[in-house]
Amino acid sequence: MGVPRRERALRIADGRSLLSGDLATVTWLTGLATDIEYGPNPFTTPPLVVLDPDGSVLAITSEDDAGGVSEGVESRTFTGFAVEDVDRPEAAARLALEAVGSASAVSADVSSLPGRVAAELVRRGVELVDVGPPLRAARAAKDPDEVEAIRASISIADAGQAAARGSFGPGRSELDVWAAVRAAMESEAGGRVPLLADLVTGDRTAEVGGPPSERVIEDRDLLLVDLVPRLGGYWADSCATVALGDPPEEVTRAHRAATDALQRGIDLLRPGVRAGDVDTASRETIERAGGSYPHHTGHGLGTAFHEEPRIIPGSGRILEPGMVVALEPGIYTEDWGLRVERVVLVTEDEPEILSGHDLAL
Amino acid sequence: MGVPRRERALRIADGRSLLSGDLATVTWLTGLATDIEYGPNPFTTPPLVVLDPDGSVLAITSEDDAGGVSEGVESRTFTGFAVEDVDRPEAAARLALEAVGSASAVSADVSSLPGRVAAELVRRGVELVDVGPPLRAARAAKDPDEVEAIRASISIADAGQAAARGSFGPGRSELDVWAAVRAAMESEAGGRVPLLADLVTGDRTAEVGGPPSERVIEDRDLLLVDLVPRLGGYWADSCATVALGDPPEEVTRAHRAATDALQRGIDLLRPGVRAGDVDTASRETIERAGGSYPHHTGHGLGTAFHEEPRIIPGSGRILEPGMVVALEPGIYTEDWGLRVERVVLVTEDEPEILSGHDLAL
Repeated sequence: MGVPRRERALRIADGRSLLSGDLATVTWLTGLATDIEYGPNPFTTPPLVVLDPDGSVLAITSEDDAGGVSEGVESRTFTGFAVEDVDRPEAAARLALEAVGSASAVSADVSSLPGRVAAELVRRGVELVDVGPPLRAARAAKDPDEVEAIRASISIADAGQAAARGSFGPGRSELDVWAAVRAAMESEAGGRVPLLADLVTGDRTAEVGGPPSERVIEDRDLLLVDLVPRLGGYWADSCATVALGDPPEEVTRAHRAATDALQRGIDLLRPGVRAGDVDTASRETIERAGGSYPHHTGHGLGTAFHEEPRIIPGSGRILEPGMVVALEPGIYTEDWGLRVERVVLVTEDEPEILSGHDLAL
Repeated sequence: MGVPRRERALRIADGRSLLSGDLATVTWLTGLATDIEYGPNPFTTPPLVVLDPDGSVLAITSEDDAGGVSEGVESRTFTGFAVEDVDRPEAAARLALEAVGSASAVSADVSSLPGRVAAELVRRGVELVDVGPPLRAARAAKDPDEVEAIRASISIADAGQAAARGSFGPGRSELDVWAAVRAAMESEAGGRVPLLADLVTGDRTAEVGGPPSERVIEDRDLLLVDLVPRLGGYWADSCATVALGDPPEEVTRAHRAATDALQRGIDLLRPGVRAGDVDTASRETIERAGGSYPHHTGHGLGTAFHEEPRIIPGSGRILEPGMVVALEPGIYTEDWGLRVERVVLVTEDEPEILSGHDLAL
């Protein structure tokens, strides 16, 4: 699959220490995937990664999370849960500054740096070479272990999709379906699963997405369900649209156009193809059917749920083996909407579909 | 209830612009409570709050979230969800720097500043006066609207506690109970609810806490369930321990000691009392019963789930009317553990218990 990720990051670092607080980059280089489900936690502060020019990777993390780093990664820790008052952001900043040492320049994902770290580096006259964009781009092509992690995460999404389809019925609320979906996914995972999701039914499908509500499902409704779980630090993505009873002909036609657009896109997911061309092929298929969608055609996923390669109009990003791409064309009218999605691995040969969920209307 | 929160923040700002990226402080001053359940989102960047010396409050936020700010708060927005590539951290930083203008000094919660903002302020020679600690302390005494928001959030926790008690039974897994708990809470809230939680049974209760697992519940197990939901930007907290069947005498005695310790603590939640003295009263009650707990006795809650006043040994923090305090003494042995919790409002008169869930063993 090409150059391993640590080597790619080293090239971007260009002989300097590399510093990032982007949680997706931290997971990518250290394996560490901290709890994210309840926002900022006063008993910790977000971890940082430092890549030394000698190739060693250092995770700056709470002592409570240090067990989560991959083999071959060093941890330097600040206090975890404690009864006493502890200034953890200050402690993390001190560890980061120590790791960088007396360098005159640092390669940093500047947008991701904590204020204390950035302020002190500038005070010391250290040049901040912003490597945020190339670093995010370098995450696009996955190493083999990353592809396996994404496969495992997709199996959780698949379980959720099956539960959504199985529990969708008249008289139940969107929240009832949602409860069944989450229970199935967490049962499959054996524990809690962070989850970004759209779950809308009936006329709410015209809104493209949204969280589950108290709306009660009626005969002949559509269900649009997009499930994005994280497992072991890697995200999956999945979307399907399901009809109760026989849908109107216009919905059936639109669904066929969406699956055609999806297939057109998948066929183009090959090394050397421009991301913008995948977008065009998908959008044109939908437009020929008289429809459109107000969102991207697709995106990469990995330690972030939306990353390079973004499949958007005009993108010159060139596809490479190892990239994992979610394609999700749809059609939306004033009264209803639908969307279908597949996650696909770009290989040297045929694109490999990783998603396993049912796309039938 | 004393001085309104914006006035308290203005005093801390001390004539300078005040700048914070602490999500809890942003919610406190602007009403804005952004999605937190799935970690960093590439379609946004965390919001910031700027309090001008003239008393006006400015939220720097995604255009997608601007509808969430309170009346009387101005929004300056960056692009929300978009097909095109947008550098939102850069846009947010620019808006923050514009809001601060050409000031020579800024009152900032320095630990909460994004790297781009902190770096540029230092580059411009702006003095950063760190007001993080006093600002967090100022959040401790709640305004009346905040107490109402916490009450509403507690009603969600109460619904979860009732569901935990009702679904706890032999042959079910912790994840089964968990699914029932979440469904009840989200049904009560009418939508998704961010949730920090411990849900452990049997010998896992000796570990003080932890997420739900596949462990199957057995006859005579204990269930320790601590539910911390956020509703409308405000957090609740709640803990109870439930026994299946007749518990051993030592567990019954320990539970009585924990509820006694809780009551001792509650009785002291009055204006002018030192937080450390509440801690001592609770711990001594547990120790007289031959037990101990390795955590704080309690904490404030509001726009953060753990904030001032922390009820910990030696704290000289003085209780004031309007403070909302969760007390949660427990007893843990090598084989089992238990904990009970009440959220209490400090008033000019008697402490008012806000929690409504059942504490029976």
